[in-house]
This record gives sequence, structure tokens and C-alpha cells, in this order.
Amino acid sequence: MKIYDSKTAPNPRRVRIFVAEKGIQIPYEEVDLVKAVNRGEEFRKKNPSGGVPVLELDDGTCISETVAICRYLEELHANPPLMGVDAKDCAIVEMWQRRMELELLIPIADAFRLRHDFFKGKVRQLPEYAEVQKQNAEDRLKRLNNELANRQFIAGDRYTIADITALCAVDFGRVSKIGIQPDQSNLARWHAEVSARPSAKA
Amino acid sequence: MKIYDSKTAPNPRRVRIFVAEKGIQIPYEEVDLVKAVNRGEEFRKKNPSGGVPVLELDDGTCISETVAICRYLEELHANPPLMGVDAKDCAIVEMWQRRMELELLIPIADAFRLRHDFFKGKVRQLPEYAEVQKQNAEDRLKRLNNELANRQFIAGDRYTIADITALCAVDFGRVSKIGIQPDQSNLARWHAEVSARPSAKA
Repeated sequence: MKIYDSKTAPNPRRVRIFVAEKGIQIPYEEVDLVKAVNRGEEFRKKNPSGGVPVLELDDGTCISETVAICRYLEELHANPPLMGVDAKDCAIVEMWQRRMELELLIPIADAFRLRHDFFKGKVRQLPEYAEVQKQNAEDRLKRLNNELANRQFIAGDRYTIADITALCAVDFGRVSKIGIQPDQSNLARWHAEVSARPSAKA
Repeated sequence: MKIYDSKTAPNPRRVRIFVAEKGIQIPYEEVDLVKAVNRGEEFRKKNPSGGVPVLELDDGTCISETVAICRYLEELHANPPLMGVDAKDCAIVEMWQRRMELELLIPIADAFRLRHDFFKGKVRQLPEYAEVQKQNAEDRLKRLNNELANRQFIAGDRYTIADITALCAVDFGRVSKIGIQPDQSNLARWHAEVSARPSAKA
């Protein structure tokens, strides 16, 4: 088993933190995104969509999509549970994982890739929509600050994949000047707490 | 158990098809999206993000997010399996479900909501990006047509949640004039086949 990785993109970091929380060892291979190796013919045999991370199994099967990789690892290594412990809890964790991804990480990623030179010629850019997504992300952070008033973690009282997605989103926001505001103390408390875990350095 | 539903939006249809494929009975309550009931204070107690569908459990817990609802139902009713049968298969199905959602359904939904009057004042619109997402969706359909050359269903040789997501995406594309092209015969074959299942009428 092996993971195609990148130290600069937010999605590979989600998988590295997940792996670190599980306490498992998987070899990583860095993919040079600056040289667009991930968009080359060879890499597209592993993931036709050209994204990292990709988990390559020993039989050659390639799993792309961050959450699909995490689910595979969760199946193989149940403890500590990061995707829920029973049907209802799994659904709640998945709901929050998706909210953090669709409502926070994707707007934050769009704020970068729709206007930054790094993505020029790689995606159809539109700086005006990058700005819209920046505002959408800022609205979502404001709401998240309120939601965190009464609970320790994103999906409840246990650290889960939803925290990993939100942490990687917030930290990646820096490149687009999206961040926690001085009056968002619940969000700041949560961010300090999840950032202090050893896995955050992964 | 009860599902807050809408007959016009693509995400609730994904859940209705999933439920129909499982052969289970769950009462539906139609939410009036035209009157924006889903954006009102009462409904936001069930889903603060204001979207349908929402699954309300007998203990009052509300699960929103289509795939979280499907996962809960999959846990309760294992057969027929729609989200994979073992760790590797579950990961492959999840990968394809996500590709169909992130690369096809979301672009198709954006092509509508970023420019149509129905969403005026509800989301930050930008018709230029609606057009970009229309092109992204059309590119993805072209690629999907090639991918379907060698297999019956989206994720392999079994009907899964990935087919449901793709079907709802393609059918919703009609409102934005996004659709299967005359030369996309693999896509047309697949669409005819999944549309012929009784669940497609759900």
C-alpha cells in the first residue's frame, strides 16, 4: 500500500492527518504539482481526474478521493473511530464531514484556484467567482463559530474526520486571506485544540 | 422516521431512488421550496443549511446531506447493497459516488442556481460562472461516455449509489440544456438502462 501525496495541497493533508490519528504507517510518494506530474498521462492511469491523494493497493487498485481513502483505512483499522461508531453516529459524522467539505473547504479551495496563477490553464478560472466563494466561506465560518459554542468538536464530543476537513480548510484559507476573525472565540478555541494534536503536523 | 422531500430538486430524488431500490417504505413530507419554507426559521431547526432532503428519526434527530441519509439507510437495510460489499468495493463505490457528485452534479446544479431567477436573493449568483460550470459538466459527460465503454454501471458491474447520483445529475441537466450528445452512445445506453428501473420514477 502506498499514498501519492503532496505537501502543499489541502486534500492530501486530510489523509495524512487521518493516517496519523490512526497510528498507522503507510509510505508516501510526493507528486510534483508544480511540474503538473499529476496531470500527466502516467499519473492519470492512477487517477483520471488528475488529483492527489491516491491510495495504491498492493494489487494495483487505485483509490482516489480523500474520503474514499479514509473510509478504506477506517474499515481496515477501526480504532480510534474517526467516521462514527454506530449507524446514527456514522450518519451524523458524515453529515458534518460533508458540510465542512461542501460548505467550507470547496469555497476556500475555489477562492484560490479560480484566480491564482498556479491554476492558470489547468481549470477554467473566474476571479469574480473566487471572490464570491471567499464570501461564502466567511459566512460559513461565522456560522461555525456559533455552532461550536456548545460542543468540543465539529460533529459532537469526539474528534472525527469532520474536524480534519475543517482544519485543513481553515489552514488553507490563509493563502486567500480567509481566516478566523478576532470575535470568533469558539472557532479559535476549537482551532487551537485540533492544531495542538500531533497529527496536525502530518 | 420521516423524510422531508421535494419533487423538483435533484438531491431529494437521489434519496427517493435509494429508498425505492432498497424496497423500504418511509413517509415523505413535501417542503414547499417555491415558498422557501426550507429557508424559514422552523425548517432550519431541522437543517440549519436550509436544504432538502432531511431524514428525521423517531428520537427527533435530523440527518441532512443526501449521502449521510443513504449511509444510515444502508446500515439499517443491507440488501441490496448500494454502497459496496467489502472494504475495497466500498472505497471504489465511494470514489465514484464522489466523482459523480463533485465533478458532475455540483457543476450541473451550479449551472442552474448561479443564474436562474429561482435562486435570486437566495445564493450569490454569477451567470458567468454558471456558464463555466456548464462547460465543466459537458467535459465530464464526454469523459464519462468513454469510461462507460467497458462496464455496465458507473462503479463497475453492479448498480450503486454512484449511478443514482449520475442519473439525477444528468436528468437535472435538462433545465440548463446540458445533456447526452448524439455521439455519446455508451452514456445513452447506460442512461436508458438505469432510467428503465422502477426506482427511476421515485
